[in-house]
Amino acid sequence: MELTQKHRDALHDVLRWRRDVRHFLPDPIPDETLHRLRAAMDLAPSVGNARPWRVLQVHTPALRHKIIANFEAANAEASQIYDEDTRASYAQLKLAGLREAPVHLAVFTDRDPAEGRGLGRQTMPEMLCYSSVTAIYTLWLAARAENLGLGWVSILDPDSVARTLGVPDDWKLTGYLCLGKAAFDNDTPLLHEKKWQENSPTRWEII
Amino acid sequence: MELTQKHRDALHDVLRWRRDVRHFLPDPIPDETLHRLRAAMDLAPSVGNARPWRVLQVHTPALRHKIIANFEAANAEASQIYDEDTRASYAQLKLAGLREAPVHLAVFTDRDPAEGRGLGRQTMPEMLCYSSVTAIYTLWLAARAENLGLGWVSILDPDSVARTLGVPDDWKLTGYLCLGKAAFDNDTPLLHEKKWQENSPTRWEII
Repeated sequence: MELTQKHRDALHDVLRWRRDVRHFLPDPIPDETLHRLRAAMDLAPSVGNARPWRVLQVHTPALRHKIIANFEAANAEASQIYDEDTRASYAQLKLAGLREAPVHLAVFTDRDPAEGRGLGRQTMPEMLCYSSVTAIYTLWLAARAENLGLGWVSILDPDSVARTLGVPDDWKLTGYLCLGKAAFDNDTPLLHEKKWQENSPTRWEII
Repeated sequence: MELTQKHRDALHDVLRWRRDVRHFLPDPIPDETLHRLRAAMDLAPSVGNARPWRVLQVHTPALRHKIIANFEAANAEASQIYDEDTRASYAQLKLAGLREAPVHLAVFTDRDPAEGRGLGRQTMPEMLCYSSVTAIYTLWLAARAENLGLGWVSILDPDSVARTLGVPDDWKLTGYLCLGKAAFDNDTPLLHEKKWQENSPTRWEII
């Protein structure tokens, strides 16, 4: 399959207009859209073809409230590492859209799957979690192409999320995701725009 | 920016025809193509906008030979976990294209970057490596759109790779990549085709 300039241009648009979204509209996402996103994840790479990602769509309000409380506690704690001025800047940032996003997805990694038969992960066992990361990013790009936004919330106690959601011991939280229509489009990261951390170019050296 | 059915179709082609490539043609890759791939990585998401990935393009033959020896030792060791029949199947698999691929890229993660100011990685420090994984996958998709193949080699002792390449202590090997023209196209993972591990659908549950 020879890919063309049209493919390159379209991929560039998707990559350029993907954002980590924290400002969501509450509009629900149709089930058939979610099914397409799930099918896109089947195309992600995985070590040993093990596909170790496990997606929980967190729908129950009581569970969502516990996740929001987890985020708020972790975020308050995180702000303590900064001096007073920086803490004030940090407090101005909106770092998650958990209350507004219509869909919450908790993506876990099964750290001991039968699938793959151990191939490719003996010296680098982290490859299982890395496989889930590529599945999450596949979902993210497919969602953006459907004009949906995704936000990856990492300011959470991951073990507490696992307990809240009652998952098996072998499952490790890899990403907690908010999904929905974004309130606005942007081709620039919010943290660059808000002057928390400006964009830096990829460092690449020949040795 | 409203994305269209054309974007969705093009993204689907790129995702569907991306493979973990182990069969490379030796044709060199023009520098301007590598520059475009580097620029694509600038569009990857990263925790705190920290962009912690560091790319070393391994050109020196003596260094490449050490990486190949590292792979061969790790691969021989890996085969020891299987029973005799499975070991014979494992030995039939081609698991890396390190000898043929014109370009080798070692992607490290700086585990203590100033960039990002610690945001988003206090409870989940692994987010730095996960950011590098999304950068690698961005490179992978951009390469496929340029009709190039990428293979991610994880059967390596990562600390030994770091020593061979002489990187700072804070850098962790996230992915060692082979890049070049693929000897053939395929929309099916080789491990599925070779009956090592068949494809399984993404597991998604509503709770």
